[in-house]
Amino acid sequence: MTQTTEPPVTTESAEPTALAQARTSVDPELRRAVDALPASIRRVARHHFGWEHADGTPATGNAGKAVRPALVLAAARALGGEPGQAVRAAAAVELTHNFTLLHDDVIDRDATRRHRPTAWTVFGDADAILTGDALQAQAQLLLAEDPHPAAPAAVARLAACVVELCAGQVADVALEGRDPREVTLPETLAMAEAKTGALLGCACALGGLYAGADAAQVAALDAFGRAAGLAFQLIDDVIGIWGDPARTGKPAGADLAVRKKSLPVVAALASGGPAADELAALYGPPGPGKEGPAELEAIALAVERAGGRDWAQAQAADQMARAVDELARAVPVPQSADGLLSLAEFVTRRGH
Amino acid sequence: MTQTTEPPVTTESAEPTALAQARTSVDPELRRAVDALPASIRRVARHHFGWEHADGTPATGNAGKAVRPALVLAAARALGGEPGQAVRAAAAVELTHNFTLLHDDVIDRDATRRHRPTAWTVFGDADAILTGDALQAQAQLLLAEDPHPAAPAAVARLAACVVELCAGQVADVALEGRDPREVTLPETLAMAEAKTGALLGCACALGGLYAGADAAQVAALDAFGRAAGLAFQLIDDVIGIWGDPARTGKPAGADLAVRKKSLPVVAALASGGPAADELAALYGPPGPGKEGPAELEAIALAVERAGGRDWAQAQAADQMARAVDELARAVPVPQSADGLLSLAEFVTRRGH
Repeated sequence: MTQTTEPPVTTESAEPTALAQARTSVDPELRRAVDALPASIRRVARHHFGWEHADGTPATGNAGKAVRPALVLAAARALGGEPGQAVRAAAAVELTHNFTLLHDDVIDRDATRRHRPTAWTVFGDADAILTGDALQAQAQLLLAEDPHPAAPAAVARLAACVVELCAGQVADVALEGRDPREVTLPETLAMAEAKTGALLGCACALGGLYAGADAAQVAALDAFGRAAGLAFQLIDDVIGIWGDPARTGKPAGADLAVRKKSLPVVAALASGGPAADELAALYGPPGPGKEGPAELEAIALAVERAGGRDWAQAQAADQMARAVDELARAVPVPQSADGLLSLAEFVTRRGH
Repeated sequence: MTQTTEPPVTTESAEPTALAQARTSVDPELRRAVDALPASIRRVARHHFGWEHADGTPATGNAGKAVRPALVLAAARALGGEPGQAVRAAAAVELTHNFTLLHDDVIDRDATRRHRPTAWTVFGDADAILTGDALQAQAQLLLAEDPHPAAPAAVARLAACVVELCAGQVADVALEGRDPREVTLPETLAMAEAKTGALLGCACALGGLYAGADAAQVAALDAFGRAAGLAFQLIDDVIGIWGDPARTGKPAGADLAVRKKSLPVVAALASGGPAADELAALYGPPGPGKEGPAELEAIALAVERAGGRDWAQAQAADQMARAVDELARAVPVPQSADGLLSLAEFVTRRGH
């Protein structure tokens, strides 16, 4: 393991104030919703959110950055609403996000998340699946019991988003099982939009609904969130290949070691020419022995030579430009969009 | 395998007309909701409902009896509502039921349902889990987009019910992993009410809401459905031990072969005395060899001698009496409750 001599940049230092403020205002609502669950499900959920250890003792957990709730509140503010009234919607979006994490971890057999053991490794598949199911229902219940006039429309929008998230995860699982040379860039982008962009778009749309925005503004907010989400995924994929392990907390080239069909890799394979062929030859199933850093660096270099890194960075910039355009369409007063824009820039800068 | 000389009683012959009518009116709404799903999820759902084979060709499927949608419509009718207006709610309940079946089959590793291979055996765990997730969301979407004035309350009620269903399944999985002598009757009854009674109660409550029933009537309808659901589960458990294989479609003693902690077994073990001790000695984990009919018959006899069969039948009768009381509380005009009552009697007579 190489050690960096620079102090690791903590995420806190770079974090927009909107993010910490959103956590402060949404956290009590989120905890109330989780604590209202039956005891057998509550303990799994509280562990998942990092509030409890497996034995039920309190943990000073890491429940994640809460980017999605922050987007709900920032979108409400940007459209002239009172963010305080959208706190339930923000908590519902965060519950929904965490339901998908619980199921994705079972499906992908991921053993750690946020530096902690995942729910299925601690409580078994059954409890992890059922806790995810209950969080989905609890999110809908939170919205359905919200007296705010936008709540019924928010229920429908969030439910439709969940269907899209599921389709995105189905597509992701299917892609990972296929020959890398047969995976196309458009389908990988569509998968990333459904899996990542849809909920960021939904978060922004819900904030707009709660601020009384009209249909065109809500659609533009959704498009803003989707574009920002795609930009985030592109940068996250770049970090998954070339990121500094001291900053990402993941070993270098982790995505390459499992032959993940991330966007830069698919773009590189689809680029044609000898560099793509060279990468395709390297990107078959890994051999039985553990690959060393040299092998992974060779693959990373092949992705770069085939243009995957440049493409992803240019594409992320394009998506951010699209996001800014959509935001201008949604928000009549430019300076009130500052909060949303700084959140989008934050997530695409660092990947979360 | 012993062959019965009597012709098997087909379920159709005993079926109340309300059941067939409900299927006819709800089926198009159900198919519309499933067909609105993304293609990758739709194919799993259509297979699960028995409408398609795994290769996508049409099947003359068996989507189940649709008891729950029939309860929604019958409850609406009993409270003076127009059942036709509750068709979406009925379809939402059926989607919810099928979401739980998809996940339960993954969790319990059940390989067949309704005489067909379960989704996870055909499409893998990931697609089965995600299709369940999408059906839960689609059920909420169906209600949320329903212009009926009762729809918002129905969304909240259905979501709260799903949380209870999840807790019931968590409890069931936990019970199955424990020493049979340490499982208590109250917790097994509570599990069965959450896992089976809750959704039957919710179905009746939703029908009441759609008919404009007041809160006390809706609560009584819910209690009616729960009691009928418990009666159903008790009879289903009796059939799982002593049922005629020619009528149940399951091998004799199937529940005993897997040492299921069904209600008659738990009641028998909790009865105390030498008969309970004898049963406890037989109810350890099965040995490596396949048990023959003689061994399973000996266990069934031990359950019976320890009073498990009599208890379950008396308890089922008590629950049905409770159901009838609750129904009288909910429905001002006795004869308008006939449809609900005949459905309850049908499900508890046969088990489904």
